[in-house]
Amino acid sequence: MDLNTIKVIAFDADDTLWVNETFFRDAEIAFAKHLLDYGDEEDIVRMLLDTEIRNLDTYGYGIKGFTLSMLETAHRLMGDKMNAETTAFILDKGKQMLAEPVEVLPHIEEVLEELSKKYKLVVATKGDLLDQERKLIKSGLIDYFHHVEIVSDKKETQYKKLVKHLDIEPQEFLMIGNSLKSDVIPVLAMGGYAFHIPFHTTWTHEQVDDEINHSKFRALTNAKELLDIL
Amino acid sequence: MDLNTIKVIAFDADDTLWVNETFFRDAEIAFAKHLLDYGDEEDIVRMLLDTEIRNLDTYGYGIKGFTLSMLETAHRLMGDKMNAETTAFILDKGKQMLAEPVEVLPHIEEVLEELSKKYKLVVATKGDLLDQERKLIKSGLIDYFHHVEIVSDKKETQYKKLVKHLDIEPQEFLMIGNSLKSDVIPVLAMGGYAFHIPFHTTWTHEQVDDEINHSKFRALTNAKELLDIL
Repeated sequence: MDLNTIKVIAFDADDTLWVNETFFRDAEIAFAKHLLDYGDEEDIVRMLLDTEIRNLDTYGYGIKGFTLSMLETAHRLMGDKMNAETTAFILDKGKQMLAEPVEVLPHIEEVLEELSKKYKLVVATKGDLLDQERKLIKSGLIDYFHHVEIVSDKKETQYKKLVKHLDIEPQEFLMIGNSLKSDVIPVLAMGGYAFHIPFHTTWTHEQVDDEINHSKFRALTNAKELLDIL
Repeated sequence: MDLNTIKVIAFDADDTLWVNETFFRDAEIAFAKHLLDYGDEEDIVRMLLDTEIRNLDTYGYGIKGFTLSMLETAHRLMGDKMNAETTAFILDKGKQMLAEPVEVLPHIEEVLEELSKKYKLVVATKGDLLDQERKLIKSGLIDYFHHVEIVSDKKETQYKKLVKHLDIEPQEFLMIGNSLKSDVIPVLAMGGYAFHIPFHTTWTHEQVDDEINHSKFRALTNAKELLDIL
């Protein structure tokens, strides 16, 4: 693998730089427990996930859309019994999530410090800009990055736009992230490099089971391995 | 005014390219009317605006945060009486707003067509990316723009980052928008050009009453005047 062409390295944010899915999983469980009179935990979580996926085109990704989907799911479950207490519980849960401290993943800081000496680093995320910028500041990682690229989705089209926007060629671009579906497959498809670092929890909607065999792909087990390769 | 240095023109999106505030004003009134048992219209609208402003740091700008602020305001007003009907009404109102057709403002299309021949045009907005990209596609204006810049706020710091990101000097940048506070004052402060085109409704939170007297500023009454100047 010839890595000498790489000029810009883009990092996914949530669950690549810092913990994120854990907060959503915890919130789902708290939500289900609040509504146990209306179904068992597993069914309620599945119903919430179903609502989230149906709302993706409308709400996009992020905590605000998730909060609205929790409210909609509660209404589907409770019908006319939906009350002030449940609404307030969900609104509070959303605000708590937005206020969570940022937990940077292992080795990330030392890896960014080294890589920022040789490459232009950017964050490429489909989250909410305000939310992601806040996390970047709280994480203490902001100075390692040239800027944050918010993309409305992570498909080949958006990566092509991103590369054009960065004024580089696809083979000068490396994406690093925890999602094969969002961070790896579309980047390889447009001719860029993509390295996968899995996070212990990956959202059901993001899972791709295929094995990947590609000259511009590397599967890593943790961020530190980046320093052996780049 | 020497306009020959200008290379990139950034347009604000909401209420500069298309109608937006009107939808929020209509939603506020519908919200207040739904809650007339709990206060008069004016007081309810003021209470909602107060909630929105207190939530700006948490939710940022956009329809999802506005929907969450409507829910919070209803809960403040109704207390334990907040019911399924009101929650569903507000969730529906938010989704309706997200699905509104885009109404492009007068002269915008012909102005963009002309200006795109001489300048690089971008959209600079602090809205939600998914929402703004959807509006740009629906509006039919997307091909006139090089890309969309989402900024977390429109202060001098963010404009400096934007200009750096565009790889130009402040005096090569012109911002066009309907808000003196967000589109004009911070741009002039960093040394860029800024033209103001007012929209008939401007959010109370955005109003600035000072007169502006600056060599790089122009006050226009409609978009068509741009073609006489640029």
